[in-house]
Amino acid sequence: MPTPTLHWSGDVNGSLVIIDQTRLPGELVEIELTDVDQVWHAIRTLQVRGAPAIGLSAAYGVVLGVRGAAGGSEAELRTRLSEVTVHLAASRPTAVNLAWALKRMQQAADQLAGRTPPEIVAGLLAEAHAIYEEDRAMCRAIGRHGAPLLADNSGVLTHCNAGALVTADYGTALALIFVAHESGKRLHVYVDETRPLLQGARLTAWELVQRGVPATLICDSMAAQVMREGRVQAVVVGADRIAANGDVANKIGTYQVALVAAAHGVPLYVAAPTSTFDLSLTTGDAIPIEQRDRSEITHGFGRATAPEGVGVYNPAFDVTPARLVSAIICERGVIQPVNAERIAAMLAK
Amino acid sequence: MPTPTLHWSGDVNGSLVIIDQTRLPGELVEIELTDVDQVWHAIRTLQVRGAPAIGLSAAYGVVLGVRGAAGGSEAELRTRLSEVTVHLAASRPTAVNLAWALKRMQQAADQLAGRTPPEIVAGLLAEAHAIYEEDRAMCRAIGRHGAPLLADNSGVLTHCNAGALVTADYGTALALIFVAHESGKRLHVYVDETRPLLQGARLTAWELVQRGVPATLICDSMAAQVMREGRVQAVVVGADRIAANGDVANKIGTYQVALVAAAHGVPLYVAAPTSTFDLSLTTGDAIPIEQRDRSEITHGFGRATAPEGVGVYNPAFDVTPARLVSAIICERGVIQPVNAERIAAMLAK
Repeated sequence: MPTPTLHWSGDVNGSLVIIDQTRLPGELVEIELTDVDQVWHAIRTLQVRGAPAIGLSAAYGVVLGVRGAAGGSEAELRTRLSEVTVHLAASRPTAVNLAWALKRMQQAADQLAGRTPPEIVAGLLAEAHAIYEEDRAMCRAIGRHGAPLLADNSGVLTHCNAGALVTADYGTALALIFVAHESGKRLHVYVDETRPLLQGARLTAWELVQRGVPATLICDSMAAQVMREGRVQAVVVGADRIAANGDVANKIGTYQVALVAAAHGVPLYVAAPTSTFDLSLTTGDAIPIEQRDRSEITHGFGRATAPEGVGVYNPAFDVTPARLVSAIICERGVIQPVNAERIAAMLAK
Repeated sequence: MPTPTLHWSGDVNGSLVIIDQTRLPGELVEIELTDVDQVWHAIRTLQVRGAPAIGLSAAYGVVLGVRGAAGGSEAELRTRLSEVTVHLAASRPTAVNLAWALKRMQQAADQLAGRTPPEIVAGLLAEAHAIYEEDRAMCRAIGRHGAPLLADNSGVLTHCNAGALVTADYGTALALIFVAHESGKRLHVYVDETRPLLQGARLTAWELVQRGVPATLICDSMAAQVMREGRVQAVVVGADRIAANGDVANKIGTYQVALVAAAHGVPLYVAAPTSTFDLSLTTGDAIPIEQRDRSEITHGFGRATAPEGVGVYNPAFDVTPARLVSAIICERGVIQPVNAERIAAMLAK
């Protein structure tokens, strides 16, 4: 049984235990977080990463932050809750799930108005557990809906990491693979290393090895060759954001993989929870492309690998047009073909 | 004026001066080689690399190796020549140009039979200079023929390094860019970093910066995004081997760039001397794909970036089918469209 990305250990006096992802893939080290500052630090330094996992850590971080005030008045507890929430929100200010989880904890506290401080703290822990279980159920549902798309004795190519390390459980893209593998299907996974930050090499490859799924690491530029040799029958990726028409924003390189897959007649599947859809965007053209630091490319491995004076273009993600997406798998089912009508129908369920 | 990749300094008692490419892009260090063992070491440790540059270094290495025997008999000189040739041939056994250059030096010595040892040594230096000048003329001719394909105010994408550092002069793919740039065309070059060994980041980017050509470094997975944004109007790459029908073997990732370029209507130009054609191959299917060491991907920059236990696929190059190649530029002219008839006609010139 693989080590979970994060889990709560014990009762209300327990602790949050996380895998220190900065030590992967070299070492599997779990660290125990017993106060809110440790959680803040773990999120800030990417010991825990990925939208769902950050949200979960923050939810448990609220419990760690407020439980010391359980012996005082309700007013004191609420003051402490505000401080803790503001503090945690600043750990990764742009993470949408972080803000979402903290808001949900605040709402849970509001509904416990008038209860004793120990009851409120216990209620907050229960809410964090509920978020955890919902995330777990979401992963399993995505895996269950998507696994039938992967044939027995086939090759699957992945890009970046949308696996267990970013969620409470199976992840999104990797959930399809894990569920299919556990059901006895023989899969071989080709893992794009995913420059510049190598999430594929460091994290996806590690998760697959941990769970005994046969996996082969390749450089991003090798995907076309691997497909040409007939080694890949499906591509599975996650998503950061999906527009109303099915255009998919995801890690840089996804669009290139999508083009290459289309050229070889290989279907591209996108696995993402319904919370990833942003229906306020008619198409993906409206999504601004964030630029990241040049040093990720010029000093990616701890020393300079490019000359000073060269320009650098480092977009964090790209947008894959809906026409290149064969299906979107969410926790409610499979959207196929991918278009505005099918997406609207699925989200209305 | 940029520092030449390698050049002979002085008369027959002079030395071979090379850029130590293992110090690039951090430092520009020239080293002076005065005996054959130093040349052997420089080739072996990749201080000098790329087929033409290796051949040139070996040719000058022969001069350095035999000149000490100029005071003895012709028989002693010829024995020494054999020893030196065998020694240098073992520095990079699979390099075709190395064997070719050594054979040419041997033939030059054969034609000097009966001359005095000092005359033979002087004749060998003249032969090395001739090879150098032929390489230089080849680069310039490729650049001259290909530069008109690059429009003013346009973007050009490159993959790997087919530049001055592998030749006596302008290189092959980069020759088009250098000639167009010098003629006043405003080009902006997007440089694929070219995993796993980063020849694009380390070498191509360095060459462009040295010559003042505006250049932007990207990860290999970003080429499609850069094209989608309309930044690239042409792709230029070199070639390791070209089949009779125009299929092109080149650095891994070239095929992927070719597919992505085709999807955006961007032409792909291959620049290579006629010596690159192998008419014994009807198509590129016959070219075996060499596998390189896993550590290039898992430990590319001195530390582990992938878990133990993961498989690795590391093909050294791929084959781009002729249908994706818009033109091949050689020292004799431009082959366009690319097909067996046009290639045969150009080689018959």
